[in-house]
Amino acid sequence: MGGDFGPHCIVPACLDSLVEYPSLQLILVGQPSVIEALIAEHPAVDRSRLRIHPASEIVTMDERPAQVLRGKPDSSMRQALELVRRGEAQACVSAGNTGALMALSRYLLKTLPGIDRPAMVTAIPTARGSCHLLDLGANIDCSAEHLYQFAVMGAVAAEALGIVRPRVALLNVGTEEIKGSQQVKLAATLLQQARELNYVGFVEGDGLYRGEADVVVCDGFVGNIVLKASEGLAALIVARLEALFRSGVGPRLVGLLALPLLRRLQDDLRPARHNGASFLGLQGIVVKSHGGAGPEGFRSAIRRALAEIRENLPQRLHGRLEQLLL
Amino acid sequence: MGGDFGPHCIVPACLDSLVEYPSLQLILVGQPSVIEALIAEHPAVDRSRLRIHPASEIVTMDERPAQVLRGKPDSSMRQALELVRRGEAQACVSAGNTGALMALSRYLLKTLPGIDRPAMVTAIPTARGSCHLLDLGANIDCSAEHLYQFAVMGAVAAEALGIVRPRVALLNVGTEEIKGSQQVKLAATLLQQARELNYVGFVEGDGLYRGEADVVVCDGFVGNIVLKASEGLAALIVARLEALFRSGVGPRLVGLLALPLLRRLQDDLRPARHNGASFLGLQGIVVKSHGGAGPEGFRSAIRRALAEIRENLPQRLHGRLEQLLL
Repeated sequence: MGGDFGPHCIVPACLDSLVEYPSLQLILVGQPSVIEALIAEHPAVDRSRLRIHPASEIVTMDERPAQVLRGKPDSSMRQALELVRRGEAQACVSAGNTGALMALSRYLLKTLPGIDRPAMVTAIPTARGSCHLLDLGANIDCSAEHLYQFAVMGAVAAEALGIVRPRVALLNVGTEEIKGSQQVKLAATLLQQARELNYVGFVEGDGLYRGEADVVVCDGFVGNIVLKASEGLAALIVARLEALFRSGVGPRLVGLLALPLLRRLQDDLRPARHNGASFLGLQGIVVKSHGGAGPEGFRSAIRRALAEIRENLPQRLHGRLEQLLL
Repeated sequence: MGGDFGPHCIVPACLDSLVEYPSLQLILVGQPSVIEALIAEHPAVDRSRLRIHPASEIVTMDERPAQVLRGKPDSSMRQALELVRRGEAQACVSAGNTGALMALSRYLLKTLPGIDRPAMVTAIPTARGSCHLLDLGANIDCSAEHLYQFAVMGAVAAEALGIVRPRVALLNVGTEEIKGSQQVKLAATLLQQARELNYVGFVEGDGLYRGEADVVVCDGFVGNIVLKASEGLAALIVARLEALFRSGVGPRLVGLLALPLLRRLQDDLRPARHNGASFLGLQGIVVKSHGGAGPEGFRSAIRRALAEIRENLPQRLHGRLEQLLL
């Protein structure tokens, strides 16, 4: 029921995903009448792989996590996470209120042993492919130990998604050892001691996009601002190019040809919007689709959840954490 | 003598600036033989407005600020700042080691009354024009009071550069009051009480590029990473577009037409590289040109210094600070 477009975006995305993945089974959690009406528009749907789980309440986008935790026992968000907790679903995908989803996830699913706080991660495009950036905003103030835990979780997730010996780095204002905040410097010391990890040191903001690491770790304040600023800058660049292309007959011709390329690129450069973000460190799989994403974005979030189910990511993280955590 | 290209970039930039500004007088500080040889390549130079001030030592790009402060009394950087301190120059422009320049500036010029730490500011492009972003890396850990001082300095500088009643915002992970770190929340409280300032609240990373404020304040850790990530992303986008344009005959034609537009845009999107950054809060004018900038970038830094001289920025800041600081 969540996100800027609610079931009007989510239901069509789900129906398309059912076609795309013949073994996928979906439980749509929310208000049955609304959901049924949207499904009815697509008579060819395979209802044997789709069921509706009723939930009478909706978490709004501006509700505080504490409010949602205390109230709204029958929200679609909570009911969906309850299905995961009870083992009736293997993953929860939501486009709703991020803070509430994180708070409910922690409360209902609990973190893995050794993990204080779950982190949000997404893959951003780089000159060499992509890079897993975390945390994206779940944790505003982070100690060195938290950053260390994020690094471990990011490395294991990157490995599970096919990167061999992922290069792990800390995001910092310089690459020399003396640079940065106390937390970052101390986290570097912890990571240097972790022989199991392929820790490559500090990367700067530009190094992030040059692809100098496969996993880049920062606190949620920095990660959230970097990600959103990148999204804003990508939108600005596309808008400026469009304006340039409209500024004369020659450029207009160029624009007609170039715009489809630009749109593809812009999509690629709004990774959270496009791919969603995954919560790492929970005893269960939770993927957050961007609230402003369209059906294509929500399908990407389902795809991410499927990849994590296939790799059994929480179990895999649990096993590696025992080796890696201090 | 500083920057990635040293006097080979700086001398030509200075000679061009002399032509551009007929009332400009420049003092080139450094090794006379090197500088003279470069000037000799341009026989038409008006030597009456150009003199060389000898300095035997050079601050390298990787030297620690503390080392530079203790040693190297005859570095070109220190001698240039001494000229400002003694009133023999009205501003210092350097492409050298940022940390060393900041440390020497603070030591020699001192901060304005009421300012604990100088901040680095530059103008970044936005959907509505440009925005003054500070701090860009001079101050890693900042208290709420520091952020408040940066906001005041940023507002006064923006006003001096022609923005009427600049909208001042704090960079944060959300726009609601409950969002963000303790320092940011406390800084917001201080700014709400400052009636003289046009404080508009929090902006997020994307709001920065949408132009939601004229002055955006953050600590130097966040500002440095956002600025460098933006530079990295702009470079990535241009590289991707070039690759797309090379991927076939049609796109190649588009590319030939579009590349000049792209280059212009990329330049615009590397503000620190293009425009340099200004140190605010000192009893004197210091502009840092990007170490990797070419002659065009160094000329922009000279232009910025000239604008600050014209507006008598330190004096103006001093006057406003007495009204505005707590």
